[in-house]
Amino acid sequence: MLGKLSGWNDTIVALATPQGIGAIGVIRVSGSETITIVNQLFASKDLEKQPSHTLHVGLLKNGHEILDEVVISLYKNPKSYTGEDVIEISCHGSPFIQERIITTLVEKGCRIAKPGEFTQRAFLNGKLDLTQAEAVADLIASNTEASRNTAIKNVRGGFSSILQDLREQLIRFSAMIELELDFAQEDVEFADRKQLQLLIQQLSENTQQLLLSFKLGNVIKNGVQVAIIGKPNAGKSTLLNALLNENRAIVSDIAGTTRDTIEEILNIDGILFRLIDTAGIRTHANDIIESIGIEKSLEKMRLADIVMYLFDVHTTTLEELEKIESEFKKEQIQYVLVGNKIDGATAQQLEQFASFNPLFIAAKNNVQIEALQSQLVQLAVGGSINTESTIVTNARHYDALQKLADALNDVSAGVEQHISGDLLALDIRQCLHYLGLITGEITNEDQLDFIFSKFCIGK
Amino acid sequence: MLGKLSGWNDTIVALATPQGIGAIGVIRVSGSETITIVNQLFASKDLEKQPSHTLHVGLLKNGHEILDEVVISLYKNPKSYTGEDVIEISCHGSPFIQERIITTLVEKGCRIAKPGEFTQRAFLNGKLDLTQAEAVADLIASNTEASRNTAIKNVRGGFSSILQDLREQLIRFSAMIELELDFAQEDVEFADRKQLQLLIQQLSENTQQLLLSFKLGNVIKNGVQVAIIGKPNAGKSTLLNALLNENRAIVSDIAGTTRDTIEEILNIDGILFRLIDTAGIRTHANDIIESIGIEKSLEKMRLADIVMYLFDVHTTTLEELEKIESEFKKEQIQYVLVGNKIDGATAQQLEQFASFNPLFIAAKNNVQIEALQSQLVQLAVGGSINTESTIVTNARHYDALQKLADALNDVSAGVEQHISGDLLALDIRQCLHYLGLITGEITNEDQLDFIFSKFCIGK
Repeated sequence: MLGKLSGWNDTIVALATPQGIGAIGVIRVSGSETITIVNQLFASKDLEKQPSHTLHVGLLKNGHEILDEVVISLYKNPKSYTGEDVIEISCHGSPFIQERIITTLVEKGCRIAKPGEFTQRAFLNGKLDLTQAEAVADLIASNTEASRNTAIKNVRGGFSSILQDLREQLIRFSAMIELELDFAQEDVEFADRKQLQLLIQQLSENTQQLLLSFKLGNVIKNGVQVAIIGKPNAGKSTLLNALLNENRAIVSDIAGTTRDTIEEILNIDGILFRLIDTAGIRTHANDIIESIGIEKSLEKMRLADIVMYLFDVHTTTLEELEKIESEFKKEQIQYVLVGNKIDGATAQQLEQFASFNPLFIAAKNNVQIEALQSQLVQLAVGGSINTESTIVTNARHYDALQKLADALNDVSAGVEQHISGDLLALDIRQCLHYLGLITGEITNEDQLDFIFSKFCIGK
Repeated sequence: MLGKLSGWNDTIVALATPQGIGAIGVIRVSGSETITIVNQLFASKDLEKQPSHTLHVGLLKNGHEILDEVVISLYKNPKSYTGEDVIEISCHGSPFIQERIITTLVEKGCRIAKPGEFTQRAFLNGKLDLTQAEAVADLIASNTEASRNTAIKNVRGGFSSILQDLREQLIRFSAMIELELDFAQEDVEFADRKQLQLLIQQLSENTQQLLLSFKLGNVIKNGVQVAIIGKPNAGKSTLLNALLNENRAIVSDIAGTTRDTIEEILNIDGILFRLIDTAGIRTHANDIIESIGIEKSLEKMRLADIVMYLFDVHTTTLEELEKIESEFKKEQIQYVLVGNKIDGATAQQLEQFASFNPLFIAAKNNVQIEALQSQLVQLAVGGSINTESTIVTNARHYDALQKLADALNDVSAGVEQHISGDLLALDIRQCLHYLGLITGEITNEDQLDFIFSKFCIGK
């Protein structure tokens, strides 16, 4: 595979820390000429003679120009992130200085790295498989405990090892069947068809489990959009405050997040619930039921994964709820009806709403807020969160797993129909192919470029 | 001095890289408990047993929670930036992960560092004097070659060594005079008054030179605000393009820079010329001369260090220039008159403007653009730029140098008036005091807190 890719050995450079002014910035260099190039600028020592995993303080100079006082972190191949010689230059956190150092390194023979190119090299040099490499990007983007835990598990090979298990079992069977083919004349069956059927069944179950975990994975990775709507006095801001008091998530800007439309972000059990700004709805709030028909408001609600309709149990009629519910159903919106202000209500008052099965709360006194949170989590992931098990978070993996499931069905059907060994072998090889796609054993340059192009620069 | 300051030995932590998502982030820890605290989280090795200036890859764990896969940079005291044990943790560039690691370090006994506190400790531990410490902040804020060169020179002790020279010479004299006081009865003069006068004269000259360098220093550090104004067809945008083509400065957002009012930034000879948005003036541009009377426009021009009045030599009357020039003079605005479109003009046409001594250019054909640049530099710094000599860039130093100049005058006057040795010694001690204020030999906690509060977090 390495042979097909040209130019991987040139020396690349990029700023590895975020843009902007800080105490320090780190510039990363990797490739076969790393030490030779940096040595030309580093006046204090011959880095060639220094051991790997050491730190060196000194001046970076380009001729007479002092670029900066820096610290050099030296990693010699293969004991580095990329598997190549790697140097990280910690310089003062001035964008001008960083720019000058990078420009000078380019003058001396480096090339500006493409997004994710360091990790791509780590993959190509066998330091990481593809699922691990992809998890590096997830780790950098992680913004809750759940997303961090899932990503770090996958960086450390958690997902790969599950797939590796599946793969090895399949390969063993495949080998036996191919052996049969060598003895085709003799009509022997080295591979016990019953056992194969059992194995396929087990692989199918595992695959289904992984496929099912994708809903949770997606929620962990991308969060959940929630729209809270309701009439002006339903108590939306009181509820918001009650939720925010305990769960306000501190998240910084993430590329691609359109914060314009996000009002507040809650972290419930490690899942980010992004409350969509329903300002468009609120301006028509005097007559929320009528306004719900307005395309613009619906547009916003369709953005949401969950719409929470908050109503005052004292002033809300059954007709209103019926109208709302039928709108939601017609639009196929996932919703939860929440009756507020139950603290002053009689059992009878609440009884009348029974057919809508709403969740009753008293936002002002924090009554049933936890139940509401559980319900949100339940709606979002279809159960509780367990990040201990392996979770698929990557759409590319999900696609390949679906194809794997189909291919496993083909094998299973083939065994039942007693198809010949060579056809069976073909079907099994198809399964192995889809597994290999996920881990990167089977891949192509375009696909790799696409995967790594979504990384940040310097990683 | 250290004795007066309490709590300097606790262990501090801060993010040293800019906020935001990047490939990596660096968390810095310094203090006597650094290694003990990080050891509790670093599962892979006992850092206590590792040599200084080494790198260690491993997991950071808080109990069962894996915080991240990190690289530890280990610096053992006194061979570190602060002089204390220092650990830098390179983690994945997720703000969530950085936040979790810092929070966990605080749980284990670290305290969040104040802005500049690492550098403050470096100063208190004698790793840097105060001018060097202050230059660290300048280095981080540097955005041109000139500001970087000046700052790096001062970080490396360039400014201090000049002051140290002055100081040592004064101390020698002071010692001699104090010796005289011991022999006061005998009316001897160990300190040759003529030599003292010569020394004082030389010190005064050096001090004056440093004071004069502040104009340049200020320009290097803060840049120069320039307003280009002129009637609609004077060729402002053509001139802007001509200037920008060669000099466009790429500068990132700097805290405190109000980019709203800045249009474009030019880098000429390493000085940043910030072109102020004169939109307020341009809206009245149909009658620029009348509009100049408008307070709002003048306000903007008063913001400028230099106002460039661009006029079309074909259509501009002498009356117009007279009116403009008298406005500028009345408002004490530093200005340059620039006659544009000379390529189609006759010598006679240009001759008539001679009394205004304008700079003639043809922006469209890049004629005399370099001369205009030189003139801007000349106006900004009163000469050409030489960053080889020592330049005062710090307002605090400027104030102390002014007081030093006065105190030197007192000494000089005292010698001339043959005042007694004890009074002379007092005056000399005053000079030493002001020198000590600059280098930080004489200081107090409030002043230090003030100086370092302007640093960024993590430095």
